[in-house]
Amino acid sequence: MARRKRPSRTSKPDPPSEPISEQNTTRNTPDDVFHLSPPKLGTIFVISTLLCSLHLYLLCFHYNVETELRSSILINAGLSFVGFFVTLKMIPVAARYVLRRNMFGFDINKRGTPQGEIKVPESLGIVVGVVFLIVAIIFQYFNFTEDSNWLVEYNAALASICFMILLGFVDDVLDVPWRVKLALPSFATLPLLMAYAGHTTIVIPKPLVGYVGLEVLDLGRIYKLYMGLLAVFCTNSINIHAGLNGLEIGQTVVTAAAILIHNVMQIGSSTDPEYHQAHAFSIYLTQPLMATSLALLAFNWYPSSVFVGDTYTVFAGMTMAVVGILGHFSETLLIFFVPQILNFVLSVPQLVGIVKCPRHRLPRFDPATGLLTGTKDGTLVNVYLRLFGPKSEKSLCIHLLVFQALACAFCFVLRYFLAGWYK
Amino acid sequence: MARRKRPSRTSKPDPPSEPISEQNTTRNTPDDVFHLSPPKLGTIFVISTLLCSLHLYLLCFHYNVETELRSSILINAGLSFVGFFVTLKMIPVAARYVLRRNMFGFDINKRGTPQGEIKVPESLGIVVGVVFLIVAIIFQYFNFTEDSNWLVEYNAALASICFMILLGFVDDVLDVPWRVKLALPSFATLPLLMAYAGHTTIVIPKPLVGYVGLEVLDLGRIYKLYMGLLAVFCTNSINIHAGLNGLEIGQTVVTAAAILIHNVMQIGSSTDPEYHQAHAFSIYLTQPLMATSLALLAFNWYPSSVFVGDTYTVFAGMTMAVVGILGHFSETLLIFFVPQILNFVLSVPQLVGIVKCPRHRLPRFDPATGLLTGTKDGTLVNVYLRLFGPKSEKSLCIHLLVFQALACAFCFVLRYFLAGWYK
Repeated sequence: MARRKRPSRTSKPDPPSEPISEQNTTRNTPDDVFHLSPPKLGTIFVISTLLCSLHLYLLCFHYNVETELRSSILINAGLSFVGFFVTLKMIPVAARYVLRRNMFGFDINKRGTPQGEIKVPESLGIVVGVVFLIVAIIFQYFNFTEDSNWLVEYNAALASICFMILLGFVDDVLDVPWRVKLALPSFATLPLLMAYAGHTTIVIPKPLVGYVGLEVLDLGRIYKLYMGLLAVFCTNSINIHAGLNGLEIGQTVVTAAAILIHNVMQIGSSTDPEYHQAHAFSIYLTQPLMATSLALLAFNWYPSSVFVGDTYTVFAGMTMAVVGILGHFSETLLIFFVPQILNFVLSVPQLVGIVKCPRHRLPRFDPATGLLTGTKDGTLVNVYLRLFGPKSEKSLCIHLLVFQALACAFCFVLRYFLAGWYK
Repeated sequence: MARRKRPSRTSKPDPPSEPISEQNTTRNTPDDVFHLSPPKLGTIFVISTLLCSLHLYLLCFHYNVETELRSSILINAGLSFVGFFVTLKMIPVAARYVLRRNMFGFDINKRGTPQGEIKVPESLGIVVGVVFLIVAIIFQYFNFTEDSNWLVEYNAALASICFMILLGFVDDVLDVPWRVKLALPSFATLPLLMAYAGHTTIVIPKPLVGYVGLEVLDLGRIYKLYMGLLAVFCTNSINIHAGLNGLEIGQTVVTAAAILIHNVMQIGSSTDPEYHQAHAFSIYLTQPLMATSLALLAFNWYPSSVFVGDTYTVFAGMTMAVVGILGHFSETLLIFFVPQILNFVLSVPQLVGIVKCPRHRLPRFDPATGLLTGTKDGTLVNVYLRLFGPKSEKSLCIHLLVFQALACAFCFVLRYFLAGWYK
């Protein structure tokens, strides 16, 4: 379902016989003269200011968060900041390596223009994934003691995320059939479900208590099934809401910002230390996700000089599912994911095969005007274009990210009004 | 240090421009007619009978292991057995995928014969790694409850092993420079060291107690450093004791068999439940390692129809380091690793650059006689050939595996005689 931008195999009957390159023969090959366009740091500065300032303001000034917790969060933020620069530094290096391995694509939304002829390095999400893991692992030393209750969940989270990155990268390299791909997150999520020690109950909405006869319903194993499905959904839904420069990462960082704000608000408005820990746990994984993603976005923002690959989309989806599950706010997470849910619903007829599913479900690009027009394929991108008229790729991406932000804002409004009445 | 069998990049100045293939265009490509030689199941039957029978005999008949523990171990063995068949089934499929991605090598030890012209699929260790992880994850459901003490260590082990597989596969695909490669296991091992809740003391050998003045020495953080170095050593030492068909996996399964026998003996001769758990923990990870490795060996035994890649060697090394650390028998593990230590010591002059290090440090193959002759390069393979004369690749591999088995047997003898006197 991803890989929208990769050209089809040319008609040569025989695969090229170039074997894996040798590390000590590469100095003289021409890929050493390859240079990536510089990262769009100005854009990233604007985006990160928009996304992170509220979170940091709430954490440091608005709420009276206890000092120890706040300093843990700030240490994590500092490490994430370092992770941002490491990722920024590593991407051009890794881009050379993946190009040498012929992992690249052509930008279909620029087909017919000179930009559509450039080989764009693929699967750079692997850099984000590896740096994320290293930051998350190093952070353990600052925060958890060996007998910490959270250590088991933290390690299960790392195992799940790491397994998902591995499977995503294997998929990028080997092109796993998509039916197999759909099932992979369910394996990756198992360590997490095993370690999940939280409640398995749902609170019945107050207006329904009279009908159900219960205030709290214990779902037991069904709740775990729900969490597993949530992970599968988050992972795949980011993967299929894609195809525009910057959209995969853009939706992730917007949602991650909403998650961070939600976490800080919950910490600020509660006095239960267990509840604090659950939301702090979410922050500890979301901040590095945000920081490393922003570094990749600096190269992936329109016009993309690198592509992110399934490695990135499944990693980002799994990480958000993990924090939603272990932070106990999966219902809220689902409202943040409204655009992804819409896109999924629109995609269902093609995914299940009722409507014919072409190889690419991208809008049509007109090289003369530089605008995209919606096709009949069932994706949010196409429906948006059909509703609001042709747009340039960059402005379409910004529109969709604003829509994502509105979904998140709607969630906060909903929570505000329903609090007390609903639960 | 691995990649011994990959031909150097040809002199073409420009990398081939074949992009990543599309999954739905592959049906018509000729790699669908590719067929791997059938697995050498007869050989594997002999090898696995030799390696596993003693372990199973000790477990089921010789020692009076408590029923619950024994049934856990047997459930794990059953799952591993399933893992064996899944791996066996998946390797030909994955071989097609890696070939399509041009991940292959030529067998240098057969250069000059028709067999040396065949493209051998590389990095099939990824199948072993993924199946291992799935078996290990599913096993959690049979054995651990959510509040189990061991769950944190088990998850940390999974995170470490998974991260190592990811880095190994990234290395296979992208050819990371070897200095970076050496450092990677130290990151992968961090979750493990963090979760390690065992003792950090060493027992001073009795003959030395008089001089040291202590019976037990608490090393604290230094002990953790030691464990980290152990993981780095195990991971890299299997990677550099390689280059013959079947040697990478052969040394792993021989050592794994010794680990299993050691674990069962320790369980059988102790009544401390905590001690039982530590060794059972090791069995739970070593059995799947053994089973999945044997399935790959069926294809990798002389003459190899697939190569294992760094993915396999670093995965196998890390898994054994993990069980050694969490099972608290790292000193014993180091004696099992005597051939690897020898090989490492022999390699040091070339690794640190005192002696010139050529791209391959393999013996010289004579196509006329079919025999290998030792060169002056410092590896155990070469030294063995220089000491005992030219050998065919298959018989040299068997000799080296017997040497590995003798090192393990020596360790058991040493433990037997030193018990009581030494510690």
